[in-house]
Amino acid sequence: MIDGHRLGAELARMRAARPLVQCVTNYVAMNVAANAVLAVGASPAMVHSVEEAEDFAAIADALTINIGTLSGPWVEGMRAAIRGAARAGRPWALDPVAVGATAYRTRIAAEFAAAGPTAIRGNASEILALSGEATRGRGVDAGDGVEAAEAAARALARSTGAVVAVTGAVDFVTDGREGWRIAGGDARMLQVTALGCALTAVLGAFLAGAEDPLAATAAALGSFAVAGAAAGRIAAGPGTFQPAFLDALAALEPAGLAAAAEVRAA
Amino acid sequence: MIDGHRLGAELARMRAARPLVQCVTNYVAMNVAANAVLAVGASPAMVHSVEEAEDFAAIADALTINIGTLSGPWVEGMRAAIRGAARAGRPWALDPVAVGATAYRTRIAAEFAAAGPTAIRGNASEILALSGEATRGRGVDAGDGVEAAEAAARALARSTGAVVAVTGAVDFVTDGREGWRIAGGDARMLQVTALGCALTAVLGAFLAGAEDPLAATAAALGSFAVAGAAAGRIAAGPGTFQPAFLDALAALEPAGLAAAAEVRAA
Amino acid sequence: MIDGHRLGAELARMRAARPLVQCVTNYVAMNVAANAVLAVGASPAMVHSVEEAEDFAAIADALTINIGTLSGPWVEGMRAAIRGAARAGRPWALDPVAVGATAYRTRIAAEFAAAGPTAIRGNASEILALSGEATRGRGVDAGDGVEAAEAAARALARSTGAVVAVTGAVDFVTDGREGWRIAGGDARMLQVTALGCALTAVLGAFLAGAEDPLAATAAALGSFAVAGAAAGRIAAGPGTFQPAFLDALAALEPAGLAAAAEVRAA
Repeated sequence: MIDGHRLGAELARMRAARPLVQCVTNYVAMNVAANAVLAVGASPAMVHSVEEAEDFAAIADALTINIGTLSGPWVEGMRAAIRGAARAGRPWALDPVAVGATAYRTRIAAEFAAAGPTAIRGNASEILALSGEATRGRGVDAGDGVEAAEAAARALARSTGAVVAVTGAVDFVTDGREGWRIAGGDARMLQVTALGCALTAVLGAFLAGAEDPLAATAAALGSFAVAGAAAGRIAAGPGTFQPAFLDALAALEPAGLAAAAEVRAA
Repeated sequence: MIDGHRLGAELARMRAARPLVQCVTNYVAMNVAANAVLAVGASPAMVHSVEEAEDFAAIADALTINIGTLSGPWVEGMRAAIRGAARAGRPWALDPVAVGATAYRTRIAAEFAAAGPTAIRGNASEILALSGEATRGRGVDAGDGVEAAEAAARALARSTGAVVAVTGAVDFVTDGREGWRIAGGDARMLQVTALGCALTAVLGAFLAGAEDPLAATAAALGSFAVAGAAAGRIAAGPGTFQPAFLDALAALEPAGLAAAAEVRAA
Repeated sequence: MIDGHRLGAELARMRAARPLVQCVTNYVAMNVAANAVLAVGASPAMVHSVEEAEDFAAIADALTINIGTLSGPWVEGMRAAIRGAARAGRPWALDPVAVGATAYRTRIAAEFAAAGPTAIRGNASEILALSGEATRGRGVDAGDGVEAAEAAARALARSTGAVVAVTGAVDFVTDGREGWRIAGGDARMLQVTALGCALTAVLGAFLAGAEDPLAATAAALGSFAVAGAAAGRIAAGPGTFQPAFLDALAALEPAGLAAAAEVRAA
C-alpha cells in the first residue's frame, strides 16, 4: 500500500541517511541534477570516467545512469560504474533519454536495461521504445501520453526486474505487479530542460538503502510532483520556475509530502 | 523588407511548427541553450557524438554548431552532424566562438564556415577574425564594436553564402546584399555567460523550415533583443537576469515582438 | 597585514585590469564558474582541450585547474594548460575536487600540486587528503571542519610553495607562514553545487597580475563571504540563492568589501 504517509516516511528515511549518490548524467543536466540532489537532502558526486567510475561506485550509496549526451568514452565509464555498483550491491537507476531516436542510443539503452537496474525512469515515448513498442517520440520530448505506456511499463518491469516509472502529466510507477499513479506537478516542468534527468538523480538518493524500491521510487516522483506544484504557484515563467523548484524541494518536509501527495492505485 | 511585423510573423511560424533543433554546443551553454530553445517554443536535442550525430541530423529540423569548448572528438561529431544536415537538406547555423584565439580554433572555424552553413552568428571580433581581418578580441568577449565588423560580415556572407549576424549593443544582419540593424537588449546580457550561444541555438529554431533565412535570423535577433529589454526592467543583476530573460522569451508573443522590435536598414 | 581595506584594494586592482581567466573546470561548474568570473568583473574562457589549452594559457592572464569531472583526455589538456601557464609566467590555481575518493584522483591531484600552482583551494577534507592526512570526506562534500585542516594547509603551503585556502564555515588561508581566517558567507552555500569551483575560477581573476598572492587569495575568499552573506539575506532557498549570489557579487564594491569583510589572524 503506497500513500502519502508512506512517501513522507521514505523522504524522512532518505534525509536521515544523507546518501552519497554517484550520478553519471548528461552535460545539460549535470548542474541542475546536482542541485536537486543537494536540495532534497542528499550528496551528489558526478564521477563518470572509466578511470574511476567503478572504484567510486563502491564508495557511493547509489548510482544513476543517464544516457542524455551519449558518446563512446562515456559508455565505457557507464559500464564501469554499473559493474562497480553490482559488485558492491548498490542500487542503481537508469534514465534511457531519447531511446529510439538513433540506433546507437537504442542499442546502449537495451544493454543497460538488461544489466539489472533497480529502477528505470523515462517519459512515455522512452518507456515505449525501451519496451520495443512503436512511439511518437522524435527527440528528448515525449510524443505519447503516460497512459499509453502503462502496459509497456508493466511488461518492462517484469522482463528487467526493475521498478519502472513513466513520468508526465500524471506519473505511473510499477514493479510489474502493482501500479500507482502520482499526480501533481506543473505544466511548466516540461519547459525547463533536464528536470526529468534531475528526478532520476534524486531517485538514486531514494533508492539508497531502500527496503522497498517501489515505495522509494514513488517517493521520488511524489517529491517532484509536490515541489513542482509549489514552484508553479510562485514562478513567473520557466526561467524563474527552476530556482523556485529547487527552493520548494529543499523546503519539502515529510509531513508536507504526506499531506500533499496525490497517489492512487492504477 | 524586414520590419517588426515580419519578425512577429516569423515567430508565429516557428512556434506553430515547434521544430526539433539539434544543438552541438559547448559545456557552458548546454543548459541555458536548451532552456532558451524550450522557452521560445521549440524542442532542443543535445546530440553531439560521432556515433549518432549524423543519424540524428536527419531526424531534426535544424542543426546548430557552436565551437565554444572545442576538442578532437567533438570536431568529429560536428563534422558528422554537418554531413547529416547537408544530406537531409536541413538548415544549420554556425557559432565560431573565440575564433582567432588559437590556431586550432581558427582552422576548425574556417573549415565549418566553408561547409555551407545557412547562417553564421558571432560577436564583432569573431566575425572579423572569421573574415580574416585583424581583431581586438582576446577570448570569448568582443574587443570590437559591431559597426566595425559590418563590412566584414557582408564579405563573409558573400563568400560563404550564409546569412551573417553580428551581435552586440546593436545587432547587424546581412545576406551580403541587404543589411539590417536590430537594437534593444540590455547591457547585462554581456554579463551572463553563453547568452550568445543560446541565441545561436534559438536561431536554429527560426531557420527550421524558413523560406527566408535573412528574415528568420532577424527574428531570432529581435526576439532576444525584446526579451532582453523586458528582463532588464525586472532583473536586479546578472544572476536574476538569466531566469527573467527565459521568462520573457517564453512570454514573448508575435504581436509584442512586432510592436517592440527596433529594426532599420543599414 | 591583511584586513578589509587590503581586500577592497585587491578587488579594485582586479576590476581595473579585467583579466582574462582560462578555466579548466568540471561539467557541473562550467556555467556558474563563468558567470561568477563575469559577475566579479573579469572575463572567463573555458578552454580545456589538449589541442589548444597550452596556446591559450599564454593569451590568458591566469589559469585555474579543477579536477571535478576528471577523465583521461581532460588530464592531458590540464597538463598542457599548466605547461603553457608556466612557460608564459602566468599564475594558476588548483582545485583538487574530491581528492582521496579514488586512487586515480589522488594521483592526479598530487601530480598537479607538485607542478607549482600559485594557489590551492579546497574544502577541509580535500586539503587534508592532499597533505596525505586521514580525512572523513567521502565524495565532494567535506566531512571535516576547517580548523582540523589548518595545520595540514600550512604544511601543504610550505611543501608546494602555493598559497593554500581551506573553505568552509570560516575560511582559512596561509602561505605557510602567516595564516588568516575569513568569516561570513551563508550556510546555504553548501546546498548550491559548484560554488567552491566558482570560487576557484574567481581566485584565478584575483591572482592575475597580483603582487601578493596571499592577499589576492584572501580577497577572493572575502568577496565570496560578503556576497554570500548578502545573498543569504535575500534568498528563499538554495534555488534562489544562486542568482542572488551572482547579483551580490556583481554589486560588490571595494568600499563595501572593505567594510564588511571579517578577517583576523589565525
